[in-house]
Amino acid sequence: MTDVLERPAGKVWRGGRAPNVAVVGATGAVGVELIGCLETRGFPVANLKLLASERSAGKTLPFKGKDITVEALSPSSFDGVDIALFSAGGATSRKVAPEAAKAGTIVIDNSSAFRMRDDVPLVIPEINAGALKGHHNIIANPNCSAIVSITPLWPIHQKNRVKRMIVSTYQAASGAGAAAMAELEESTRAYLEGKAFEPKVLPHPYAFNLFSHNTAIDPATGYNDEETKVMGETRKIFGDAEMRINATCIRVPVLRAHAVSLTFECENPISPDEVREILKTAPGVKIVDDVANNYFPMPRDASGQGDILVGRIRRDLSDPSGRSISWFAAGDQLLKGAALNAVQIAELLL
Amino acid sequence: MTDVLERPAGKVWRGGRAPNVAVVGATGAVGVELIGCLETRGFPVANLKLLASERSAGKTLPFKGKDITVEALSPSSFDGVDIALFSAGGATSRKVAPEAAKAGTIVIDNSSAFRMRDDVPLVIPEINAGALKGHHNIIANPNCSAIVSITPLWPIHQKNRVKRMIVSTYQAASGAGAAAMAELEESTRAYLEGKAFEPKVLPHPYAFNLFSHNTAIDPATGYNDEETKVMGETRKIFGDAEMRINATCIRVPVLRAHAVSLTFECENPISPDEVREILKTAPGVKIVDDVANNYFPMPRDASGQGDILVGRIRRDLSDPSGRSISWFAAGDQLLKGAALNAVQIAELLL
Repeated sequence: MTDVLERPAGKVWRGGRAPNVAVVGATGAVGVELIGCLETRGFPVANLKLLASERSAGKTLPFKGKDITVEALSPSSFDGVDIALFSAGGATSRKVAPEAAKAGTIVIDNSSAFRMRDDVPLVIPEINAGALKGHHNIIANPNCSAIVSITPLWPIHQKNRVKRMIVSTYQAASGAGAAAMAELEESTRAYLEGKAFEPKVLPHPYAFNLFSHNTAIDPATGYNDEETKVMGETRKIFGDAEMRINATCIRVPVLRAHAVSLTFECENPISPDEVREILKTAPGVKIVDDVANNYFPMPRDASGQGDILVGRIRRDLSDPSGRSISWFAAGDQLLKGAALNAVQIAELLL
Repeated sequence: MTDVLERPAGKVWRGGRAPNVAVVGATGAVGVELIGCLETRGFPVANLKLLASERSAGKTLPFKGKDITVEALSPSSFDGVDIALFSAGGATSRKVAPEAAKAGTIVIDNSSAFRMRDDVPLVIPEINAGALKGHHNIIANPNCSAIVSITPLWPIHQKNRVKRMIVSTYQAASGAGAAAMAELEESTRAYLEGKAFEPKVLPHPYAFNLFSHNTAIDPATGYNDEETKVMGETRKIFGDAEMRINATCIRVPVLRAHAVSLTFECENPISPDEVREILKTAPGVKIVDDVANNYFPMPRDASGQGDILVGRIRRDLSDPSGRSISWFAAGDQLLKGAALNAVQIAELLL
């Protein structure tokens, strides 16, 4: 079903006015979508400030029919800004966000810099909006693969605790930014023309290829950073430190929607029909499970929409106890996996 | 390590001569690789007959420096043929193979037509060469996803029984034949040029997209044919009817090598180091697990080689018992997944 979170049109900020909003990293793949989500969801904005690196300053980006000039990020950028949506990488967030927060701006940060800190809420609005209470002006937006994996899992977890989850991802280029999306297209074009191509953004050839996610591996566990995020963030968002999780994160030659093959084990037996019944009314989730026509979640369909598509809902045949289910899901990495979720968090602040 | 199966150079057929060999479906993606494997592995061939549909008759294909003319498949095609390698689809196999076998030709069939029959050996030479004994002139070559998934799993299974396996595949276009490979390239070219493309071979857009494997879903289980093959064939090849298996088969925009994200549970505790130690000397398997350089199995690297590449070997963190391992593997769908395995079976017959 479509998102049931109320849209904030007409709601106001403290003092009876609309909030002043800043987007940090405005020219990036997620930045552009943040601006788009603010507009399409009718988020009340008194003034929109677009911030980026020196390199991008002076560019203009459209918002509600006007061109807004991108400014270079500086110490005074957040004067008068009520809400700042950050998507400029962990280093920028670590450097700039705490000061902005201290000066009174509420930061919603898309990087992993603060996600696992005890004093920072990590929020998927469909799951744990309540975690926002008592925030200290920094709120973290979860990892995109975690969002796509667990947004549909939460309503199951509430009815029949999910004890174990094994997830393999099929991750799009967009998670590595606009430059990676361009590299996927350029390297594929070169391949088709029989030309050589030297990868610059990603460490491996991407045209008609796939590879283990290009984040560092923890030698102690053998898991890469992306997998460690999915596992740790899921436990934090679910508020369930005991949940047993195994993630394998793989980058596939797809542009902007992640897919996941997910198997989970509940505390008590559960049937595919029960899962469908629960997901039918779940916010932010759409069932795409047309067995007769072999039509299931695909990145192409997930791209551009806010819902996580879920299909291939079936018993896990490797668990005879009847407690385990497998499904295949897809969600737009730039929207629900990043920008949309951040704007939904902002909506909760109004 | 590289394939330790002895190459058959110098070995002969009954009667002291080299066998007469036929390739059925010679012009297909697998057919071309079958001819290539016969040549590169030095398989002794007295006479090579290339067979295909009427449509392809008259074409020529190279073998050992000579051009061989493709003949149309007919009832008399197998006169004098000792070994016929079939890769022309299940319908052709069902129609033609039993007669050829009855007349004395040994058929090695790449289709799924006979795989699950009790009187037909289903063989991965590294695993169950012994199953060939007492065959009735039809030997089945397993499903490509099964081969890539379980060739490296067998040596583990022998030391510490694998009780459960959960596998998600990342399958290449080649599994659907040369036309699907062409469609992947053509549809991607169209996408990059901003042109429309109507899929003809596969049911869904393939450019920068992925989708659940395009075989029919069994409404009783929710699993598609490809998944059902992986699960059933693995049990048959391992000779372990009790093995619990869950497969999710997904087609990704990759040309000719399958990858798999695999988690398995053994009877007794097992460590990643033990797995590495076992795989080091396993036939048909190469460990590619360079944690420091983030270099792991990729379809691009697997393409064109006979070994299954295995990496990301690590504990399954969702199983605290220490009995479960996860890895990521890749193997050439056309070689070990099809043609090479078939020629290896033929070698065992010499």
